[in-house]
Amino acid sequence: MKHNFGAGPCILPQEVFQEASQAVLNFNDTGLSILEISHRSKEFEAVMAETERLVRELLSVPTGYSILFLQGGASTQFAMVPLNLLPEGGKAAYLDTGTWASKAIKEAKKIGDVTVVASSADTNYTYIPKNYDVPTDAAYFHYTSNNTIFGTEVFETPQSSIPLVSDMSSDILSRKINVADYGLIYAGAQKNMGPAGATLVIVKDELLGKTGRTLSTIFDYQPHIAAGSMYNTPPVFSVYVSMLNLRWLKNKGGVEVIEQENIIKARTLYDEIDRNPLFKGTAVKEDRSRMNVTFVTEDKAHEAAFLDLAKERGLIGLKGHRSVGGFRASIYNALSISGVNALVDAMQEFEEKNS
Amino acid sequence: MKHNFGAGPCILPQEVFQEASQAVLNFNDTGLSILEISHRSKEFEAVMAETERLVRELLSVPTGYSILFLQGGASTQFAMVPLNLLPEGGKAAYLDTGTWASKAIKEAKKIGDVTVVASSADTNYTYIPKNYDVPTDAAYFHYTSNNTIFGTEVFETPQSSIPLVSDMSSDILSRKINVADYGLIYAGAQKNMGPAGATLVIVKDELLGKTGRTLSTIFDYQPHIAAGSMYNTPPVFSVYVSMLNLRWLKNKGGVEVIEQENIIKARTLYDEIDRNPLFKGTAVKEDRSRMNVTFVTEDKAHEAAFLDLAKERGLIGLKGHRSVGGFRASIYNALSISGVNALVDAMQEFEEKNS
Repeated sequence: MKHNFGAGPCILPQEVFQEASQAVLNFNDTGLSILEISHRSKEFEAVMAETERLVRELLSVPTGYSILFLQGGASTQFAMVPLNLLPEGGKAAYLDTGTWASKAIKEAKKIGDVTVVASSADTNYTYIPKNYDVPTDAAYFHYTSNNTIFGTEVFETPQSSIPLVSDMSSDILSRKINVADYGLIYAGAQKNMGPAGATLVIVKDELLGKTGRTLSTIFDYQPHIAAGSMYNTPPVFSVYVSMLNLRWLKNKGGVEVIEQENIIKARTLYDEIDRNPLFKGTAVKEDRSRMNVTFVTEDKAHEAAFLDLAKERGLIGLKGHRSVGGFRASIYNALSISGVNALVDAMQEFEEKNS
Repeated sequence: MKHNFGAGPCILPQEVFQEASQAVLNFNDTGLSILEISHRSKEFEAVMAETERLVRELLSVPTGYSILFLQGGASTQFAMVPLNLLPEGGKAAYLDTGTWASKAIKEAKKIGDVTVVASSADTNYTYIPKNYDVPTDAAYFHYTSNNTIFGTEVFETPQSSIPLVSDMSSDILSRKINVADYGLIYAGAQKNMGPAGATLVIVKDELLGKTGRTLSTIFDYQPHIAAGSMYNTPPVFSVYVSMLNLRWLKNKGGVEVIEQENIIKARTLYDEIDRNPLFKGTAVKEDRSRMNVTFVTEDKAHEAAFLDLAKERGLIGLKGHRSVGGFRASIYNALSISGVNALVDAMQEFEEKNS
């Protein structure tokens, strides 16, 4: 039994893998593979419709918001957000909380004027800046809700009089959010939604079409909305597996239920990190992510040995990102509490061996 | 037994479906699903490397050309090609041979000056224009090698003193090409390469970085080249299945072998269309596509009845695109000669019943 703590693409429920595997051979008793069906078939149109409906239901997306499944990942949204929301000559506000936030800022600067309202670069992004001012004359305020690399998360939705835009790639569907607080939310699928290759965008329709900019059709949200995410051939299989995963989440009881599980998983692991004298967390406690738990050994010499022990115990994907070092345990929705317990056991075993 | 004549996403070899299905459960004996492995794992790096190597080998891609697997389909390339190759203030030349060519032209016009060298719109794109002049002062000359909707194909590579750019989405890997004749080739995967969600780009390196335009990183070929198609999370599963399909093609003997099969399949079907008094082809004979065979009934009243008969015989995806009507039999690499024979049998059966 392996427990996959990888940061993404990442673990999905075993029953999703089973169903997806079956659909590659025979999708919905059509006698055809999900890989060969037309995206214009009524069978796939039903998949796209159900996927959208599940997102709308699980996140309580209000009317006036469109839900899109696009290609290109969050990195494409770093460009599409300013292309679609930042008027010619206008400016946008960004919060700098890590590598991905910085990349979003860099890309927005290529398209228009950008104000960075605050940054935690001074401590290598160990915390979420607070008490900053968001300029009221900016077109939108962008922040990254969870910092996969640095293990921090924004739990309190920023107060903003201008439209909020959030990259929720690594915590969407892990906890309740109030979509009405946002102008636009985007997320690469490959954490809590599905496999790599699809990107979720939830956008308030009334914000679109106001920049005065000529957009390439493919980079313009509006034609994708008009076509129900089928302006061009969608990433069929990634959308299909996302649907299976969203069904799984709904059957579990939805976002409220998974949020409680995620709180317990994160608390279990952070408690051990704080108790175990061999380890320490890297992020400040109040901003610790529930999705990506970053920690290091007190003694650098222990690092490789603990990774070896973890591997022996079937715990994989624990090596930390090079920007932080040490370890990163990504404990997304599909990573079970028994996986977290196995990691805690390994940490305790490691403590016994080394003290 | 069903035969899938759909235009794309389309049929792939059964053995590819089998292997892909297995990898969704257990990829390469890792004990992990291909859907949950990190794109930074050595296992996936090997997949990306082999996929690139197979394209290079099967198409004899010379040195000086990079091979990329991107997201977003050909529709994204309609914008990326001019963004990367059309200098500020420069112009590009395009050949208008159908719906997709027209879309490419429309998107290029948003980015720069475009000369349309010739068009077959006058006859609803039943032929490929010839004897046109390509302006020597344009940055590149773009054409669509196979017109999926109208059933025409460009068999003779256009003569051009400026770099040739070709959308080969629906005939790449179906026949031999000389990559050295081109500056850039692109193709959505979902015909002869793999499932939807990946896009192949083959580009001559020396053409890049010369437009004077500030590009969003994600729309710039150069960072993707520098990162070996892993600038951001690639469409892992689509690339993996493409690799399986390219292996299948190599094992069959490569592009030369499949080209001979494709010639026989196309000839068999066109011969029946020309012989059978109930049917007629829509494209002029010399430009008939080997990939997408478009035809109609002489008597419009027969159309629905033939589709019904075909369906009874397990022949699916034959309904023609609304721009042409009638039927379209897409006979891509993985559609067997027995599938073509089954279609010919159905046409003959239909003739007997209706004469």
